[in-house]
Amino acid sequence: MISVAVIGAAGRMGKTTCDAVEAAADLTLSARIGSGDDLLAGLKGAQVAVVMTGPEGVDDIVATCVEQGVHAVVGTTGWTEAGLAKVQAALASKPEVGVLLAPNFALGAVLLMRFAAEAAKHFESVEVVELHHPNKADAPSGTARHTAQQIAAARREAGVAPSPDATTAALDGARGADVDGVRVHSVRLRGLVAHEEVLLGGPGEQLTIRHDSFDRISFMPGVLLAVRQIAGRPGLVQGLEHYL
Amino acid sequence: MISVAVIGAAGRMGKTTCDAVEAAADLTLSARIGSGDDLLAGLKGAQVAVVMTGPEGVDDIVATCVEQGVHAVVGTTGWTEAGLAKVQAALASKPEVGVLLAPNFALGAVLLMRFAAEAAKHFESVEVVELHHPNKADAPSGTARHTAQQIAAARREAGVAPSPDATTAALDGARGADVDGVRVHSVRLRGLVAHEEVLLGGPGEQLTIRHDSFDRISFMPGVLLAVRQIAGRPGLVQGLEHYL
Amino acid sequence: MISVAVIGAAGRMGKTTCDAVEAAADLTLSARIGSGDDLLAGLKGAQVAVVMTGPEGVDDIVATCVEQGVHAVVGTTGWTEAGLAKVQAALASKPEVGVLLAPNFALGAVLLMRFAAEAAKHFESVEVVELHHPNKADAPSGTARHTAQQIAAARREAGVAPSPDATTAALDGARGADVDGVRVHSVRLRGLVAHEEVLLGGPGEQLTIRHDSFDRISFMPGVLLAVRQIAGRPGLVQGLEHYL
Amino acid sequence: MISVAVIGAAGRMGKTTCDAVEAAADLTLSARIGSGDDLLAGLKGAQVAVVMTGPEGVDDIVATCVEQGVHAVVGTTGWTEAGLAKVQAALASKPEVGVLLAPNFALGAVLLMRFAAEAAKHFESVEVVELHHPNKADAPSGTARHTAQQIAAARREAGVAPSPDATTAALDGARGADVDGVRVHSVRLRGLVAHEEVLLGGPGEQLTIRHDSFDRISFMPGVLLAVRQIAGRPGLVQGLEHYL
Repeated sequence: MISVAVIGAAGRMGKTTCDAVEAAADLTLSARIGSGDDLLAGLKGAQVAVVMTGPEGVDDIVATCVEQGVHAVVGTTGWTEAGLAKVQAALASKPEVGVLLAPNFALGAVLLMRFAAEAAKHFESVEVVELHHPNKADAPSGTARHTAQQIAAARREAGVAPSPDATTAALDGARGADVDGVRVHSVRLRGLVAHEEVLLGGPGEQLTIRHDSFDRISFMPGVLLAVRQIAGRPGLVQGLEHYL
Repeated sequence: MISVAVIGAAGRMGKTTCDAVEAAADLTLSARIGSGDDLLAGLKGAQVAVVMTGPEGVDDIVATCVEQGVHAVVGTTGWTEAGLAKVQAALASKPEVGVLLAPNFALGAVLLMRFAAEAAKHFESVEVVELHHPNKADAPSGTARHTAQQIAAARREAGVAPSPDATTAALDGARGADVDGVRVHSVRLRGLVAHEEVLLGGPGEQLTIRHDSFDRISFMPGVLLAVRQIAGRPGLVQGLEHYL
Repeated sequence: MISVAVIGAAGRMGKTTCDAVEAAADLTLSARIGSGDDLLAGLKGAQVAVVMTGPEGVDDIVATCVEQGVHAVVGTTGWTEAGLAKVQAALASKPEVGVLLAPNFALGAVLLMRFAAEAAKHFESVEVVELHHPNKADAPSGTARHTAQQIAAARREAGVAPSPDATTAALDGARGADVDGVRVHSVRLRGLVAHEEVLLGGPGEQLTIRHDSFDRISFMPGVLLAVRQIAGRPGLVQGLEHYL
Repeated sequence: MISVAVIGAAGRMGKTTCDAVEAAADLTLSARIGSGDDLLAGLKGAQVAVVMTGPEGVDDIVATCVEQGVHAVVGTTGWTEAGLAKVQAALASKPEVGVLLAPNFALGAVLLMRFAAEAAKHFESVEVVELHHPNKADAPSGTARHTAQQIAAARREAGVAPSPDATTAALDGARGADVDGVRVHSVRLRGLVAHEEVLLGGPGEQLTIRHDSFDRISFMPGVLLAVRQIAGRPGLVQGLEHYL
């Protein structure tokens, strides 16, 4: 039985996490910690903390977890270099504690990224299309940027030439955004949630890898997997892919 | 039995057309006319001409067909206003002759365009993604531009508001090109031929219409359909959709 | 201002309908009628009733609406011949009243069906793939069967030959179910809601029409469209497609 | 410079292979060997043989290559146990020679299979859809069967439960064929070539991996990759996936 405290328990992701922990036979929910609650008191008796807060102050929260010897599974994004340094400093005194920072806990999104980077070494062309609801403020999505960057790094390392493109006459924007040399297209459509597609092409063939997130419940298998494994993964880890 | 002359018979589309006419039980190929051949002699005995030449001089060719009383099914693109006027003038003296100018004879492409324009009146959001081989010079494709224009016109007429879009922070090009207010994204990938997708979204639902052209043989059913019907469609018609 | 009573207001579809009516500026919710409530009292002052009950007794409910001069927009499925006859009998004395029976109010699903039947006349091959969550008891879905039947009818009427199929060695079930000569494949996958795809193929080309239902809110635009139009559509109508 | 003999050079795959070898700067085509030609003479001076014959007698051809110290990259399918034993026997005396038997050289198809087996360990549901031209005699395709078998083996090994399925009322065939507990659906459509899709679902998410073969040229990158690597891979290897 692993005892789990959820920090940011009043938010939508926090609530979903509490439900998932309570529904898991091998986990027990030791505390629901909100923004006004006493963090130290809340962490009492917890082995793992799941952090689903906003970005502000998250570095102090995670450093406190480490100091208390509580492993931290963190879904909060927007980390700064200074924030990361604070967590590293805390870990220096508690090297047996694990911290996982993961921008996307959906197993499918993590696998898509890994498969795309692997496949991109073997294909002449690669582009990314991401599709989201029209209330989203940024384009491309953080996940799509991250995917394109990983694809670009894998191709660089394998010595693959840039994707061919003979376009000479284009309307502005037609060919998408350029992320490290990889074209990324952002579709915004009412009714959608979060979707990403990597298109790879070679002579006479195409490989397509697509991930659809229909509901934030899709993050829960990844969160629980991390909760169960983190005791065996001391130190700072960035990205759920390292746990699979 | 309809007697058919093919003009531009030595090109790839022309050859494919000749093969298709010869394979059709109800059609007979009366002449294969190349760029150096005598047009008037070639049109002798033909009821319908299929014109698959380059853009240069095509207006004179079609006007000559009309003057000879030969219906013209035309796949050549890049028409100018002056060229169209020349054909109209010829038709004024021969109102019983039919001329069809069609940029895309693939039945699926024509149906996609019609369905997209119809559906776009009923959905809050609509975007277009087109995907082609990386040797293509223009982006978006002519067919995708035409599709977006027809979608925009249908929405204007029906009084539909622009597609919602809360994007405030975007990389250049991420949200695609703007064609009459409709976002169009152009993917270029080795291995592809010509593909187009219209994505429509409303609360809780998505409708997707996609057309794939794998081979120029896909144009033949549309060409033959036009050859069979053109005698009953006098005057100038633009777009195969009017024949379906 | 159209005054609307919702019958079956306590169910999930009924609640969603009440919310949608209340949110519409041109509609007013006159009554939420549950299974134990007095129907005649509830219909007082209503111009349109939206019926979202279970199948049992729905024919009496709709007949009562008609007798009271209240138009009925009906989402309940599972109608019998006897039930339809009862409604027809009521309409005989009130020919000015409208009744709409619609198994699927999602605009996209209705458009998919119409487009598929239209396109199926022009393509050599057509098959249907439907994808749902794994808790669904029937395969294929009612909507997919209905789609296949409409496709089959359109092809019969247009004199189109059966889809070609040279299969001689197949594992049981590989080629799907046969619905009026159209192959239908049912995928069941955790995470999905309700999705349908019609695939049409001809020489060198493919046309794909796909509808995704992510949420029952997708039915609301179709329900409200029907509420607004039904006063102008007297008599019994089956299928929202007749309203578009 | 690697010297390459092509056996079965007159067939469609053989011709395409000859063209690809001639176009590669680091390879030289030493012989085109047809069915009536002298095999021993043809293998003179070759370092690698690419075998693209029919199944009959292929075991003797490959054994001869091995005896002559020529590595063999083999696309021929339909191997028997006896044929494999013959090749193994030849390799016993020439352990430094490499033989690769690969049913599918398309890199995308090989990657799809590997990714699908990996992902299938992490998702509750998995099904396979394959789509081909309607002249194909078998359903499901050999590649789809092989994919389903690899998925099933990976799930068994990881202790994953069977995909959930509450279907109680189904038309015959609706739920596809059962290959080792994995559902496989076969679509046949005019215009298609060879396409395969693996659909994986978990709570709130879907992962889709799709491969499209548009042209047999898609096999060439895999063939050339094998030709370049085989000298470093002595012994019998089955499946191009071991080379990636």
